[in-house]
Amino acid sequence: MANINRGVAEFFGTFWLVFGGCGSAVYAATVPDVGIGFLGVALAFGLTVVTMAYAVGHISGAHFNPAVTVGLWAGGRFPAKDVPLYIIAQVLGGIAAAYVLYVIAVGAPDYALAANGLAANGYGDGSPGGYSLTAAFIAEALLTFFFLIIIMGATSKRAPAGFAPLAIGLTLTLIHLISIPITNTSVNPARATGPALVEGGLALQQLWLFWVAPILGGGVGGLVFHWLNGGED
Amino acid sequence: MANINRGVAEFFGTFWLVFGGCGSAVYAATVPDVGIGFLGVALAFGLTVVTMAYAVGHISGAHFNPAVTVGLWAGGRFPAKDVPLYIIAQVLGGIAAAYVLYVIAVGAPDYALAANGLAANGYGDGSPGGYSLTAAFIAEALLTFFFLIIIMGATSKRAPAGFAPLAIGLTLTLIHLISIPITNTSVNPARATGPALVEGGLALQQLWLFWVAPILGGGVGGLVFHWLNGGED
Amino acid sequence: MANINRGVAEFFGTFWLVFGGCGSAVYAATVPDVGIGFLGVALAFGLTVVTMAYAVGHISGAHFNPAVTVGLWAGGRFPAKDVPLYIIAQVLGGIAAAYVLYVIAVGAPDYALAANGLAANGYGDGSPGGYSLTAAFIAEALLTFFFLIIIMGATSKRAPAGFAPLAIGLTLTLIHLISIPITNTSVNPARATGPALVEGGLALQQLWLFWVAPILGGGVGGLVFHWLNGGED
Amino acid sequence: MANINRGVAEFFGTFWLVFGGCGSAVYAATVPDVGIGFLGVALAFGLTVVTMAYAVGHISGAHFNPAVTVGLWAGGRFPAKDVPLYIIAQVLGGIAAAYVLYVIAVGAPDYALAANGLAANGYGDGSPGGYSLTAAFIAEALLTFFFLIIIMGATSKRAPAGFAPLAIGLTLTLIHLISIPITNTSVNPARATGPALVEGGLALQQLWLFWVAPILGGGVGGLVFHWLNGGED
Repeated sequence: MANINRGVAEFFGTFWLVFGGCGSAVYAATVPDVGIGFLGVALAFGLTVVTMAYAVGHISGAHFNPAVTVGLWAGGRFPAKDVPLYIIAQVLGGIAAAYVLYVIAVGAPDYALAANGLAANGYGDGSPGGYSLTAAFIAEALLTFFFLIIIMGATSKRAPAGFAPLAIGLTLTLIHLISIPITNTSVNPARATGPALVEGGLALQQLWLFWVAPILGGGVGGLVFHWLNGGED
Repeated sequence: MANINRGVAEFFGTFWLVFGGCGSAVYAATVPDVGIGFLGVALAFGLTVVTMAYAVGHISGAHFNPAVTVGLWAGGRFPAKDVPLYIIAQVLGGIAAAYVLYVIAVGAPDYALAANGLAANGYGDGSPGGYSLTAAFIAEALLTFFFLIIIMGATSKRAPAGFAPLAIGLTLTLIHLISIPITNTSVNPARATGPALVEGGLALQQLWLFWVAPILGGGVGGLVFHWLNGGED
Repeated sequence: MANINRGVAEFFGTFWLVFGGCGSAVYAATVPDVGIGFLGVALAFGLTVVTMAYAVGHISGAHFNPAVTVGLWAGGRFPAKDVPLYIIAQVLGGIAAAYVLYVIAVGAPDYALAANGLAANGYGDGSPGGYSLTAAFIAEALLTFFFLIIIMGATSKRAPAGFAPLAIGLTLTLIHLISIPITNTSVNPARATGPALVEGGLALQQLWLFWVAPILGGGVGGLVFHWLNGGED
Repeated sequence: MANINRGVAEFFGTFWLVFGGCGSAVYAATVPDVGIGFLGVALAFGLTVVTMAYAVGHISGAHFNPAVTVGLWAGGRFPAKDVPLYIIAQVLGGIAAAYVLYVIAVGAPDYALAANGLAANGYGDGSPGGYSLTAAFIAEALLTFFFLIIIMGATSKRAPAGFAPLAIGLTLTLIHLISIPITNTSVNPARATGPALVEGGLALQQLWLFWVAPILGGGVGGLVFHWLNGGED
């Protein structure tokens, strides 16, 4: 496929991840009595990846996440020269999604863009449960480490063919089931960047952590799985 | 397969989608303490498609939705001559389901057919969360756009075989996780028509949007994916 | 496989269905704040079939339900001579599960075997939402009709191989999402019989409906799909 | 694969199971209004196995559980000489996970390591619902028995290829949907050991049951399925 198609696929996929995941949080999580809660948000994030990976996996490989792109490069599965294209497409997709999310949100009566009004990530005062910077950093790095272990493993040549989108998307659901209270769950710098840019303020000040920790954890995860798998793809 | 078999498959599938999805909303969503909420309704809508697409996908292709039929035609995957048959079968299925839904609902003590009593779609006063016409239109068109991207992608020749019903049905679950508060979620003119006809009133007056927005979004989605996939099927 | 192995597989499978599905309802559905509710029970029933059908589908075909056995016979997929063996094994499995369910339940402080204390099926006074006999009958027959349409379809030769246990189990989840408030959801005479025998009283008096309606709906479903599929297996 | 790779895979998998499953319980289950409840915890435990089994199943077989290792040995599927390596790796993974779980938990304001503060297993006073030792023992042994039936069945040669991680992980979800109120659900001595060692006290005193009952049930399950399947693998 041409680079333009691959870039557009990454843009659409990351748009879908941020619009669908954060959208479910903003519009549906806290509706009284029938709201979907953190469980529904966790499912939504995971399903964005399950669904779009089946749709465009054969076009771009379905990363939708700079930490995944870096991790796959570290693990020997993705060429360095394509990393910038992918990360740019992902970040643009995340930003576009956050703006559309906001445009629909203001269509509701009494909506005001408060802090976390677009489901931005955070620690300390920006954490849903008030978790410290240290706890947030460990959680984001560790969860992205395991995310890459599973991505590398489920797409390795000896894993059952066809199931990788399901395994990888459901990993994102699982990661959210664990860590929404800690950081609102990022493990994805593009997902963190979109809402932070639109919200501004605290979310933007804390954005650095959601680039550093996931990329660190994801990079190490790629390396470790490469060794664990005996150097095979 | 003969047209009659294909038409009946579309009728059954759309009946199942409306009866199962709206039925879960009407009977089970708001039961105190143990009700399934929007999360359960989202799962139910998605599972109607997952299950019926595995059952009759080989007979009719499992559209169950005029916006899907139009989108697949726009994307070069479905012949124009069969569009009317499919849409008629789908709409009849949706209407039949809404009537049966009503017949069972009146078997409960104190049931009264209030507005939204059959989970009709709406905006403004007809929206569960009071979302504006503009927000509702954007949401319905955008979500159907992505629905068609995923339908086209998951059924393309280079996607893993056999997983499309799962990917497509779970997309419908995801769409509901995002947008039930906005419009009660349609993305499907046949699903909107059944309950609107039985409820009448506001639901019927607002029905136009749930034909226009999904068909617009779905048609564009079909075209865009055709380009994105390099013109391949 | 020998008949004894097939019968034991049906016994285990139906035990699992009743113990897992009704067990989740009895032990976990109504725990304050963190209970799984009807959504969790619906998931549990479906997963009993998903999991056990992957485990013993190659041994017995994984019916676990007299209405399924009758429907598959009506649809030309199962020999009449094996129907009694299967139904007996299924009913014994359901009864054994209900007893074990009860033995564990009395290990909780203050447990008393009230009506519906083992998640028995019912209508009118026995219905969770007070639904009438007519509504209950329509719901049980209609849902079992569609259950058989999907079972026949997902296991037909032209459906994708390997996905049938998933499609069929998730259909049972969907059916529960719709109808737990109506009848506590049976669509399965063996599932109805176990708890009714242990509970006695109203559940036992109303047991007839949960044999008649599912077998009627399932039998017609088997016939209709056989026609819909053009007479192919 | 070399033993070191297989051991590390079992360590990672069991770490993921305990960190993800118990982590979702500790961090996210009881958040007011939007918490994931027992349903979310059940999903999390199951998804740890679904995801990691797709990732490292081809390296170690993905046991992540001493009762599974013993059951597969009893069923003739795993060599006795590798049992100690697997069990040691699993227990170390469970202990490491419990410590990391604790390190993150103390990053929340006001966290105190109360009883069950790391989701340890228990009966009587240690049971979430106060279930007796007898009820707890029957539940743990019976559920592990069926767990092994399904593990052996879904990985047998005549079962559909590739679906086993899904079937087995979803079995763990189902087991939790049934039994969290009874014992906090173990069916896995390594999962029980990690939190018990960090919590100490009652959890440590009751740990014996969560080694004896699962290994007994799992061992018998392996034997019974071997017979049920006609002695085939």
